[in-house]
Amino acid sequence: MIDLNADLGEGFGRWHLTDDEQLLSVVTSANVACGFHAGDPVTMRRVCELAAERGVRVGAQVSYRDLAGFGRRAMEVPSAELAAEVAYQIGALEVFARAAGTRVSYVKPHGALYNRIVHDPEQAAAVIEGVLLAGGSLPVLGLPGSVVLDLAAKAGLPAVPEAFADRAYTDEGTLVPRGRDGAVVTDPEAVVERSLSLARSGTVVALSGARIEVRARSLCLHGDTPGAVELARRVRERLLESGVQVEAFV
Amino acid sequence: MIDLNADLGEGFGRWHLTDDEQLLSVVTSANVACGFHAGDPVTMRRVCELAAERGVRVGAQVSYRDLAGFGRRAMEVPSAELAAEVAYQIGALEVFARAAGTRVSYVKPHGALYNRIVHDPEQAAAVIEGVLLAGGSLPVLGLPGSVVLDLAAKAGLPAVPEAFADRAYTDEGTLVPRGRDGAVVTDPEAVVERSLSLARSGTVVALSGARIEVRARSLCLHGDTPGAVELARRVRERLLESGVQVEAFV
Amino acid sequence: MIDLNADLGEGFGRWHLTDDEQLLSVVTSANVACGFHAGDPVTMRRVCELAAERGVRVGAQVSYRDLAGFGRRAMEVPSAELAAEVAYQIGALEVFARAAGTRVSYVKPHGALYNRIVHDPEQAAAVIEGVLLAGGSLPVLGLPGSVVLDLAAKAGLPAVPEAFADRAYTDEGTLVPRGRDGAVVTDPEAVVERSLSLARSGTVVALSGARIEVRARSLCLHGDTPGAVELARRVRERLLESGVQVEAFV
Amino acid sequence: MIDLNADLGEGFGRWHLTDDEQLLSVVTSANVACGFHAGDPVTMRRVCELAAERGVRVGAQVSYRDLAGFGRRAMEVPSAELAAEVAYQIGALEVFARAAGTRVSYVKPHGALYNRIVHDPEQAAAVIEGVLLAGGSLPVLGLPGSVVLDLAAKAGLPAVPEAFADRAYTDEGTLVPRGRDGAVVTDPEAVVERSLSLARSGTVVALSGARIEVRARSLCLHGDTPGAVELARRVRERLLESGVQVEAFV
Repeated sequence: MIDLNADLGEGFGRWHLTDDEQLLSVVTSANVACGFHAGDPVTMRRVCELAAERGVRVGAQVSYRDLAGFGRRAMEVPSAELAAEVAYQIGALEVFARAAGTRVSYVKPHGALYNRIVHDPEQAAAVIEGVLLAGGSLPVLGLPGSVVLDLAAKAGLPAVPEAFADRAYTDEGTLVPRGRDGAVVTDPEAVVERSLSLARSGTVVALSGARIEVRARSLCLHGDTPGAVELARRVRERLLESGVQVEAFV
Repeated sequence: MIDLNADLGEGFGRWHLTDDEQLLSVVTSANVACGFHAGDPVTMRRVCELAAERGVRVGAQVSYRDLAGFGRRAMEVPSAELAAEVAYQIGALEVFARAAGTRVSYVKPHGALYNRIVHDPEQAAAVIEGVLLAGGSLPVLGLPGSVVLDLAAKAGLPAVPEAFADRAYTDEGTLVPRGRDGAVVTDPEAVVERSLSLARSGTVVALSGARIEVRARSLCLHGDTPGAVELARRVRERLLESGVQVEAFV
Repeated sequence: MIDLNADLGEGFGRWHLTDDEQLLSVVTSANVACGFHAGDPVTMRRVCELAAERGVRVGAQVSYRDLAGFGRRAMEVPSAELAAEVAYQIGALEVFARAAGTRVSYVKPHGALYNRIVHDPEQAAAVIEGVLLAGGSLPVLGLPGSVVLDLAAKAGLPAVPEAFADRAYTDEGTLVPRGRDGAVVTDPEAVVERSLSLARSGTVVALSGARIEVRARSLCLHGDTPGAVELARRVRERLLESGVQVEAFV
Repeated sequence: MIDLNADLGEGFGRWHLTDDEQLLSVVTSANVACGFHAGDPVTMRRVCELAAERGVRVGAQVSYRDLAGFGRRAMEVPSAELAAEVAYQIGALEVFARAAGTRVSYVKPHGALYNRIVHDPEQAAAVIEGVLLAGGSLPVLGLPGSVVLDLAAKAGLPAVPEAFADRAYTDEGTLVPRGRDGAVVTDPEAVVERSLSLARSGTVVALSGARIEVRARSLCLHGDTPGAVELARRVRERLLESGVQVEAFV
């Protein structure tokens, strides 16, 4: 059983990025941008309505406050600020989820914040504090073995590990940093095969050629590149054909 | 019986404006800025915590998205955007209110938006749509006779009229526009007297000298000018001394 | 002789809108977004460099401060603020124009501001004050007969009228408001024909069928819709084939 | 001979922070906020006008783009973005300086950026690239021994070292980090004495008690705390009384 998640609603006002309509027919969990790196209220509302119609779970994709950098620039945000900013974003999204007849079902940090709290205990703790402030014991989606998932579990929040079928892994199970040769898997068939392997056996072939274990309850699909939606659809179909249940984690 | 409301949390990051701590010992309803004209998540959290401690009601002070203009510049915002922006702000505040053990109890539009929806049915309807989106049938605080209070009532939301003891009124019961001679009442004792009159008899002396009826359930006190907190305290004391119950409307 | 202008650099950070590279091979004047409705410093720099390489004039596309609304929401901005905001944007762009070996050669207001100063003398005067603050007696591009062009001329600034080949005109020579039937001309060949007519005879067929006079020194081409660049290229080619000189106005 | 510099124009819209009027009667160099951490166009214009009237030099106080954090949160900004952002801010200020009859005479990075480029060669190089983009070979004001001053000198820009009379120094001549005991000198008379010592002998007593060398061409005065303006005035008077020339470095 595997969940498929993708980032949605990552436009802002006049600008559009993700093909929300199409992706919502593929994924089981929608990471909705909440206005700090992307996402405006009108888009948040519409994505929540579409997700609710199709039974897709709504998650808060929380970020540093950085529209100009799309949340991709790491920031030294004091813990109290970061915690409150995370809670603010969850609350804003909750309104639209509830109005659409659903609710915010999980939290997934975005971009530079996501990467930072893999290893930074201070910011990871602040994110967890923000999730707790928002109430409801929301699950946190993140990298297996990350500090933030560890702290989530300690705080009594479900910690949901995810994997990336289109990213290369080191032998230790961490992602090969973007920019290194082979960091991104671009061959669509390879992405499909890796998805199947991750979902069925909890393993994937690392960059070194070794088969390693990556236990994930969710697969992250990307929706902002040409052909991405088509690839996401293929991944979903092949998972279903091979007998994997595609189902949200909450 | 009268409610006392004031704008709080109207700083942003490094900048402070309102003396939140002091005002919270005077008012019964706190209009908390939600980040669009002022207000950052840390401040919103702190104001909610202080308000909850002291039994002061928390209201969402919603605004146009305009930090640079402090929400004082009227904007032609399409209805769908305005409705979603209003809901977004309420939701963001709700997180901090709930975390503090209370909840958002009402909505008060701010600045140029407040003035616009006295007479503009389109924007007034959008604000009401935003309040309904946020759920919970929140009361709306506004000017007696305004379009927005009329629409609130029609939508089944409690419409709460408020008065301004430090503003001059026309014979028709509308506010004399700022900028006109005598528009603002600056003599502290006069403000106190007008507060008493508004609370006890539902009347006030208009600019013309005529005594007119202004039925208000709440008095708006200002907290961002020198001496404002002291004046607010005097108003409260004199109301209590004269036997008026000072109590929130929800 | 006619100038061709288009809006460029209208992305922001991660978001892209206009095909700057392609449009710069068509137009003679580039209206560069300056950061208030769109446009970030990296994009401004790159557009200026490309424009300078190709001999395209750089203009400051100044706007209300409204990223969320893409500058399309009219705002009541006090004159002193609007004037200073206009000057700020021109100055910011000037740095990149100069670094690229060119300079800001004109100013074109954007979106809701553009429409507002067709008829609003107060905001039009503020825009002119902003242009004067920036120095250099920059030409102002606008609608023929608009208040802003009138005030520009009175202030000693070159007033450059422009026309829209893809918009319908009333018999009085004003644009038929978007939203009305027939307001936008979508047939590419019709747009080409209208361009030729505007450039060669200074006339165009109004919505009523009457041929009216529209004296313009520049034609505004749009670059943010599918097929727009291709259409712009055809307009340019047909103008050249028919003996019209395509040349910047400064 | 010593220059006195202070941060000015650090409000934003409705919010005020620095007493610009008073500080401009004390300092010889005004670090004007350019809109990224603080500073709006109206304020920038006014500060430039006042500075020009009084013969105070105008400097661009450039920052990370971070209004919510007042530029005090370090950010991982890619070099190309940072360089362009620095140039953008200088250009925006230049308009108001020129309109006031003066010009931008130097650049002083603000807050987290200031601290970062003491030691980070990549961001320091990006700042220098931004200054070069803006043209005019502007001097850069910074910490003695910092990477940014080193790179400025190598790029042919005047590198101007500054000292802080109200901050404790280590034996190596670096600032004792805020938060450590004794990091900030609060006794006004001590601040005055340290100013005299820095200006007259280029030395100051370190936290350890040792007298160390700190060669500075400018003293940074703070204007955002109670009593700050009064203290700044005393420093200036005592410097003049003791025969030190108080004069801008450009």
